[in-house]
Amino acid sequence: MSGLTYKDSGVDTALKADLLARLRKRVKAGRPEVIGGIGGFGGLFRAPSGKDLVLVATTDGVGTKTELARMLDRHEVVGTDAVHQSVNDAAATGAEPLFFLDYFATSKLDPAVFDRIVDAIAAACEASGCALLGGETAEMPGTYVEGAYDLAGFLVGAVERERLLDPASVREGDELIGIPSTGLHTNGYTLARAAVARGGDPLEVLRLPRPELRGGTLGDALLQPHRSYLSDLRALREAARVRAVAHITGGGWEGNLPRALPDGLGAVVDRAAWIVPPVFRVLASLGGVPEADQWDTWNMGIGLVAVVANGDEHAAVRALPDAIPLGRVEKAAGPRRVRFA
Amino acid sequence: MSGLTYKDSGVDTALKADLLARLRKRVKAGRPEVIGGIGGFGGLFRAPSGKDLVLVATTDGVGTKTELARMLDRHEVVGTDAVHQSVNDAAATGAEPLFFLDYFATSKLDPAVFDRIVDAIAAACEASGCALLGGETAEMPGTYVEGAYDLAGFLVGAVERERLLDPASVREGDELIGIPSTGLHTNGYTLARAAVARGGDPLEVLRLPRPELRGGTLGDALLQPHRSYLSDLRALREAARVRAVAHITGGGWEGNLPRALPDGLGAVVDRAAWIVPPVFRVLASLGGVPEADQWDTWNMGIGLVAVVANGDEHAAVRALPDAIPLGRVEKAAGPRRVRFA
Repeated sequence: MSGLTYKDSGVDTALKADLLARLRKRVKAGRPEVIGGIGGFGGLFRAPSGKDLVLVATTDGVGTKTELARMLDRHEVVGTDAVHQSVNDAAATGAEPLFFLDYFATSKLDPAVFDRIVDAIAAACEASGCALLGGETAEMPGTYVEGAYDLAGFLVGAVERERLLDPASVREGDELIGIPSTGLHTNGYTLARAAVARGGDPLEVLRLPRPELRGGTLGDALLQPHRSYLSDLRALREAARVRAVAHITGGGWEGNLPRALPDGLGAVVDRAAWIVPPVFRVLASLGGVPEADQWDTWNMGIGLVAVVANGDEHAAVRALPDAIPLGRVEKAAGPRRVRFA
Repeated sequence: MSGLTYKDSGVDTALKADLLARLRKRVKAGRPEVIGGIGGFGGLFRAPSGKDLVLVATTDGVGTKTELARMLDRHEVVGTDAVHQSVNDAAATGAEPLFFLDYFATSKLDPAVFDRIVDAIAAACEASGCALLGGETAEMPGTYVEGAYDLAGFLVGAVERERLLDPASVREGDELIGIPSTGLHTNGYTLARAAVARGGDPLEVLRLPRPELRGGTLGDALLQPHRSYLSDLRALREAARVRAVAHITGGGWEGNLPRALPDGLGAVVDRAAWIVPPVFRVLASLGGVPEADQWDTWNMGIGLVAVVANGDEHAAVRALPDAIPLGRVEKAAGPRRVRFA
């Protein structure tokens, strides 16, 4: 039996080193606070100074949207998603992004796929005014299904303490302002994929032009990138008293809207205030997904809900042309705090 | 065909919410800077203030050590590992840890396993003086091999700019001080597992008491937690002029020691300065792993190398009873910058 090298065992360290060298060129740039050339074991960033500054840290993975990105060779999308979902989580606390790191793991590194994803991450970081400060890449044969990968992001932002969005400041009668999503964003893809599988051969189901989607395909609709709400929230806070913000992610409406409310308060949401995008209706129909499961899993067309002070709803809608008044804050009616009307 | 719920598709949101609620109790504690009760979409941490402060951000996964943790039902170990490896990476730049977030993803959530891992993470954070500020848990059937999981960590630390460890400050003739590892730490496990597989039935190979391991098993030797060098480095910097530090992780000696050296300089390391622990010899023998692959993959018994100013090596060794003078910094002899003598 011949000797066993690390490469024989399934890990190509030369390839990884090469990829990381290419990554490093893109990393440590994007903001003047980044300190390059020192400290290869961590990314260095000059600490923000300011009175009563708060750091906000978030982490999230892109979920099984990666499986669709693989099937349809659209890997860039999940790179953008990884950044935008974290930017939005930080922004929901009131923070502006400072820096981002990614964690990419797979059964076997494919340099072309990795490059496309990292390019998208770097572009999304730049567009968000966020430094790409580092990342880790792991090759784990036996842990990941062959060809599969996972992508998670970590983001640190900052906000002055008095600018923190605080659910405790929300009052009964405050108004809910919704901002449309681009689709499922990065949530509920396991349910979506199961629904697709019920429709027949998944690739065919994904590639079929559909009149409900104006001739578009379900694949395209499912691979829209997660919308960044950073500039929307900046504009909204300029125009209106924003009390708190809910990013509608995993867990759908009931799982997220109450996170922007204090104990004892709930929300009444007028489902007629917007038209649920057809991608959700197509998926629900393919899978026979019960209505309750749809709303507890997907964002149903609204990716972010801002709670603004009563009286500021018109200013909010003027500031954001696609914002939609959805309803208001009321006393919680029971254990479920979102009431649809 | 009955309707398709999210749970039918393989994701149990109620279970995840329950686990995250339990996690949240452990999260947002551990340091006075943590701001609780606000901002469910991100962890909040009062920004450190100080002159010329630098934030240091690191991310790393625990790799396929998870596979051994599963086989031998020793999940706690990888929780500890996730924290210690990040603490060490940050400490290699001179930083003290501030806060940590984890990313845990699996084919199907097992609450008991998750709890054990998070308990270990929380304990390691506490012992490191680091807040556990958040985390994400993902259930991804179809991406992960059944029963498999991955665990990555993200840590932010801080250091005064003048206290940054800077490879550019290293001079020819500076001394190398090694600190022992507890084993492979979290690197080279795919090679180790392939070597084990060559020895026969993996479980039997892992559970066999071995005279080379003083009657211990390979399984126990491979599941020692990654050593934290935080207190060692504090003591070392008190006693000696530490110029730079290399954390010997993925890529072994050649992959890491040069990261603590400026261009043009290399290191001569006396292999007789310490005895390579038997776990490496057993693995190499089982797999027939070439000597070069061993040193380019594993730490071979030294998990961290500090570069101290010439003349301070005795002070360094007095400060750390288990520290070992390994060699010194010299002109780089060629493309490989670590020369073994």
